[in-house]
Amino acid sequence: MPVPSSVLNPPFHVVRLNHVVLTVRDLAAAKAFWGDTLGLQLTQETPGRLYFRAMEERGHHCIVLEKGTEPSARHLGFKVFSEEDLDKAQHFFRAKGLKAEFVEEPYQGRTLRTVDPLGVPLEFYFRMDKLPSVHQKYALYKGVKPLRIDHFNCFSDDVDASVAFYNEIGFRVTEYTENEDRSRLWAAWMHRKGGVHDMAFTHGIGPRLHHVAFWVPTPLNIIDLLDLMATTGYVGNIERGPGRHGISNAFFLYIRDPDGHRIEIYCSDYQTIDPDHEPIRWDLRDPQRQTLWGAPAPKSWFEEGTVFEGTPVRQPAYAASPIVAA
Amino acid sequence: MPVPSSVLNPPFHVVRLNHVVLTVRDLAAAKAFWGDTLGLQLTQETPGRLYFRAMEERGHHCIVLEKGTEPSARHLGFKVFSEEDLDKAQHFFRAKGLKAEFVEEPYQGRTLRTVDPLGVPLEFYFRMDKLPSVHQKYALYKGVKPLRIDHFNCFSDDVDASVAFYNEIGFRVTEYTENEDRSRLWAAWMHRKGGVHDMAFTHGIGPRLHHVAFWVPTPLNIIDLLDLMATTGYVGNIERGPGRHGISNAFFLYIRDPDGHRIEIYCSDYQTIDPDHEPIRWDLRDPQRQTLWGAPAPKSWFEEGTVFEGTPVRQPAYAASPIVAA
Amino acid sequence: MPVPSSVLNPPFHVVRLNHVVLTVRDLAAAKAFWGDTLGLQLTQETPGRLYFRAMEERGHHCIVLEKGTEPSARHLGFKVFSEEDLDKAQHFFRAKGLKAEFVEEPYQGRTLRTVDPLGVPLEFYFRMDKLPSVHQKYALYKGVKPLRIDHFNCFSDDVDASVAFYNEIGFRVTEYTENEDRSRLWAAWMHRKGGVHDMAFTHGIGPRLHHVAFWVPTPLNIIDLLDLMATTGYVGNIERGPGRHGISNAFFLYIRDPDGHRIEIYCSDYQTIDPDHEPIRWDLRDPQRQTLWGAPAPKSWFEEGTVFEGTPVRQPAYAASPIVAA
Amino acid sequence: MPVPSSVLNPPFHVVRLNHVVLTVRDLAAAKAFWGDTLGLQLTQETPGRLYFRAMEERGHHCIVLEKGTEPSARHLGFKVFSEEDLDKAQHFFRAKGLKAEFVEEPYQGRTLRTVDPLGVPLEFYFRMDKLPSVHQKYALYKGVKPLRIDHFNCFSDDVDASVAFYNEIGFRVTEYTENEDRSRLWAAWMHRKGGVHDMAFTHGIGPRLHHVAFWVPTPLNIIDLLDLMATTGYVGNIERGPGRHGISNAFFLYIRDPDGHRIEIYCSDYQTIDPDHEPIRWDLRDPQRQTLWGAPAPKSWFEEGTVFEGTPVRQPAYAASPIVAA
Repeated sequence: MPVPSSVLNPPFHVVRLNHVVLTVRDLAAAKAFWGDTLGLQLTQETPGRLYFRAMEERGHHCIVLEKGTEPSARHLGFKVFSEEDLDKAQHFFRAKGLKAEFVEEPYQGRTLRTVDPLGVPLEFYFRMDKLPSVHQKYALYKGVKPLRIDHFNCFSDDVDASVAFYNEIGFRVTEYTENEDRSRLWAAWMHRKGGVHDMAFTHGIGPRLHHVAFWVPTPLNIIDLLDLMATTGYVGNIERGPGRHGISNAFFLYIRDPDGHRIEIYCSDYQTIDPDHEPIRWDLRDPQRQTLWGAPAPKSWFEEGTVFEGTPVRQPAYAASPIVAA
Repeated sequence: MPVPSSVLNPPFHVVRLNHVVLTVRDLAAAKAFWGDTLGLQLTQETPGRLYFRAMEERGHHCIVLEKGTEPSARHLGFKVFSEEDLDKAQHFFRAKGLKAEFVEEPYQGRTLRTVDPLGVPLEFYFRMDKLPSVHQKYALYKGVKPLRIDHFNCFSDDVDASVAFYNEIGFRVTEYTENEDRSRLWAAWMHRKGGVHDMAFTHGIGPRLHHVAFWVPTPLNIIDLLDLMATTGYVGNIERGPGRHGISNAFFLYIRDPDGHRIEIYCSDYQTIDPDHEPIRWDLRDPQRQTLWGAPAPKSWFEEGTVFEGTPVRQPAYAASPIVAA
Repeated sequence: MPVPSSVLNPPFHVVRLNHVVLTVRDLAAAKAFWGDTLGLQLTQETPGRLYFRAMEERGHHCIVLEKGTEPSARHLGFKVFSEEDLDKAQHFFRAKGLKAEFVEEPYQGRTLRTVDPLGVPLEFYFRMDKLPSVHQKYALYKGVKPLRIDHFNCFSDDVDASVAFYNEIGFRVTEYTENEDRSRLWAAWMHRKGGVHDMAFTHGIGPRLHHVAFWVPTPLNIIDLLDLMATTGYVGNIERGPGRHGISNAFFLYIRDPDGHRIEIYCSDYQTIDPDHEPIRWDLRDPQRQTLWGAPAPKSWFEEGTVFEGTPVRQPAYAASPIVAA
Repeated sequence: MPVPSSVLNPPFHVVRLNHVVLTVRDLAAAKAFWGDTLGLQLTQETPGRLYFRAMEERGHHCIVLEKGTEPSARHLGFKVFSEEDLDKAQHFFRAKGLKAEFVEEPYQGRTLRTVDPLGVPLEFYFRMDKLPSVHQKYALYKGVKPLRIDHFNCFSDDVDASVAFYNEIGFRVTEYTENEDRSRLWAAWMHRKGGVHDMAFTHGIGPRLHHVAFWVPTPLNIIDLLDLMATTGYVGNIERGPGRHGISNAFFLYIRDPDGHRIEIYCSDYQTIDPDHEPIRWDLRDPQRQTLWGAPAPKSWFEEGTVFEGTPVRQPAYAASPIVAA
């Protein structure tokens, strides 16, 4: 897989993913789940909104939940390297014919709201309010003890197009699955921050958010969460895992919040910071790419996702391989 | 569930399960699996036989593998409290009209070979050769780092009858599942040594050995084994898990050896030593009794088992509940 | 080390240790420590008393804290096999010229209060109120997630005499340290319940309680407790560890409650249930018996302990070895 | 602590630390320690040299051991972003009056050998031979299962000067300790790759290498290493820990190789990639900065280190605080 030069010299510098804004139907139910069960720190509660962050994070929020009538994702948020990068980004998106406007967002600095060519709503910012660190306030840890937001994963109806665009803004592929004849990408994992991914794309009806992931220190935190969810009324919210992905080598668990938003709990990433780090190609016929230990994912995992608010979805640009769910 | 007086005053004293003799078709393949992958210590290799023990055990063997033409289980072995208990046991079994003969077994003292009323071949002994402890020889630990044999689990075509018999010889029920109208037992876990079980019975075509289990210290040892098996050609030998059982509260993994013998890796048992310890009843309609976290067991887990050599199997005494595998 | 016949046929049957009654100067401080930090379940609060149990326990209490003017231990409590054993025990102690009276204790059945020949106050009972199990109520777990009380450890001014007495009532030595010329015991670990110990004795000014121990599932629970204590004002209450004992092979941590009572957090015990299980002798000159990894224990660990209320202490019967603390 | 502009716009781009060349007196002893005990993969053995890498690494080596007469460190190796950065680096060092020559190093591309202003010998390279990944070859994992080299730590006789220089080449301080009156730095942790550090400096006789660190996934890997070392003749090579650092929040262990080179085993780093990430200041009077749990480091840890070959050491530029070792 050739690396476009834009990966090393992007038009503006994205540091990492930072946050997502999701709509939920019942804020009280969402607060109980994301706060008390998952264990994120509730940093602010305003009429119609809940703000959370993970335990090592310095910024104000990585999850924003908004009261809505239907579950949806509103924006995927990324931090850029400087204020100047915001202006460069606006210029870049407008040159593509994509809308790109600065908006006021509470607890954030100047915020550029735009959209990728496939319709994923994006938010770029440089400054965010900082809160006192709770990283070593161990009395506040609960649930799965989430340390930081790790990545987004989206369904894309055209993974090749998604990868081409994110390559153009400096995201680099670390692992990918190709169609059998190597003519089309099936899925790809792309990073900015030096791990396996900030953003991944999977072939499917899109654009939709497949999941948002949190990094935890050890598999035992995931086992603790499973025990907790299984005995507090959330057993039906456990969707897949625990297991190890072949791709990324991560120990994983997938759960669903009360509105069906999918969350991955993720640990044991690896370092991908080298500019000559080579991506790993996986064969679509190798089931161990999904679960190293062999257990298949449930149908819901392949099919269900969160729509982006106001964003129509499309059928994939090419047919699903009959072997994928085999 | 009433506790028969024989539980507290048995006719002879069984200390605990100790070993099983299994036949395998390929000793070299079995040695690679049980020794190098699972991590048991090979204590003796004789023509046609392999002897293994787990890492904290003092005795000569907990697993004996014999070259055979078909996979089978030959005997389940139990340690009694004294030589005198062996004579009491012989008397007890003969009084039931069951054959009970002393045989010579290498590395064991006087060994009583007999059979339970449902046809499970048993072996009782008091003395076994001891080998130097390797408990703190950490350089020898490998695979899942198995510490000790923990229990047997058998399919029984009449769980009520199995439980009644093992009650009679002092095994005590710790957890059980009853048929919906509470008229019949579906499954039961019975102990002598103070944990959840030395022996368990599950409704099914029987008698057959469902699995033999090893105790390991932490779930991370199980994750290590999964990673190892998944990348050394044994991914197809991973059958179920990892997960937490509702019953026993154990963190578990089920794997199959190259001959299909099922092995459970088991951790986080609890103490059941009190004479007034009350058994836990589970509802057959509660799927969390099997997997606290909700994931169902595969069909093979309900259906497949190891026959006891020379022992015909029977259909269960009453029909399977349609809800069990739901 | 010869095993007295009384070990296999004791005059009355002790099942296991069960509880200790400690006096504390400030019940509110004690409640915060034992409940919120250590993570025991508070089962009852009465004027002047707090009752706690660990998470897998069925009985009403394993720790009773009483308001007192000075920190002390009042009784070490043991469960016997039957009501009849209580009468046998009373007879046994009285035949030794030791006081042994039945008293009323809340939440317990008939309770025999007596004393061992060296002055350790003991309590034997068969029945205790049972409370609904919280073993699988994972939302209630906190602190170090203690599962059960594991053992007591006492300073004895004459370890040989202590061991002889507990041998007489059926406790069996699993590991021990002898003086250099093998003429005197330095320390001994003795069990009833099938693990390394219910009760241990160490050479020193005695009788005093050295510590009470709780069993936890994995070393990570101990690390969690260390992080919690270190950041909630209890860093000074961390006394020794974490580490691995050579003796018992346990992963350990020693902490002190606000009154100085020492608590061991203990995991990875082994099974000692066999009647022919041989004790392990350790050389007093081998520092790895104390800490397998080499780090020495602090002076306080060798010298400080909790007095038994109203019980005078004595200097040891023979001089301390100069090599012990080396 | 102000961030110099050079941190965000350095004269040449360093990606991360990559390797260190150490001299050892006995290659066979070193191979047994670094390979069989620590668990690094031996990638090449040539006359007089051993090359190792950690398990997730793609490059040829992170540790090079050379036969020597005295233990020393020869070079600290860093990867740069491109070949062009090597030329920029040569220019930069020469402009400072520091020697900077390209040398041929086996398995590496063009290699710039130079020295920092305090005398630490450095090596910069862009290309290194790649070897097939063993990241998911779990059968090859052993010892502590080291995943990647994490950082270097050096004694510096002038920490302010060291920090100023590494700031100039783009290293950013994440945590630091200041002298009581805030006039001088006592220690500083500086990163390029987005974690707590690639390089740290501690006040002392310098320049000397204090330690090289490896990242491992969980504290249980560290416990496994301790058990292994303690029972294979290396108990005396365990120097400090396990414990948690206040600074970096890492779970740590310090060991010494057969030549006394110090190695840290390190887990649970945090993400520092944000350009506005603020460093954490620690008070020199706070002992929890060193060990969150309170246990002091041994004297050897403060005093002993590896000299850089041919590099004279100096006494620190200002006196040690009397409170540091308190």
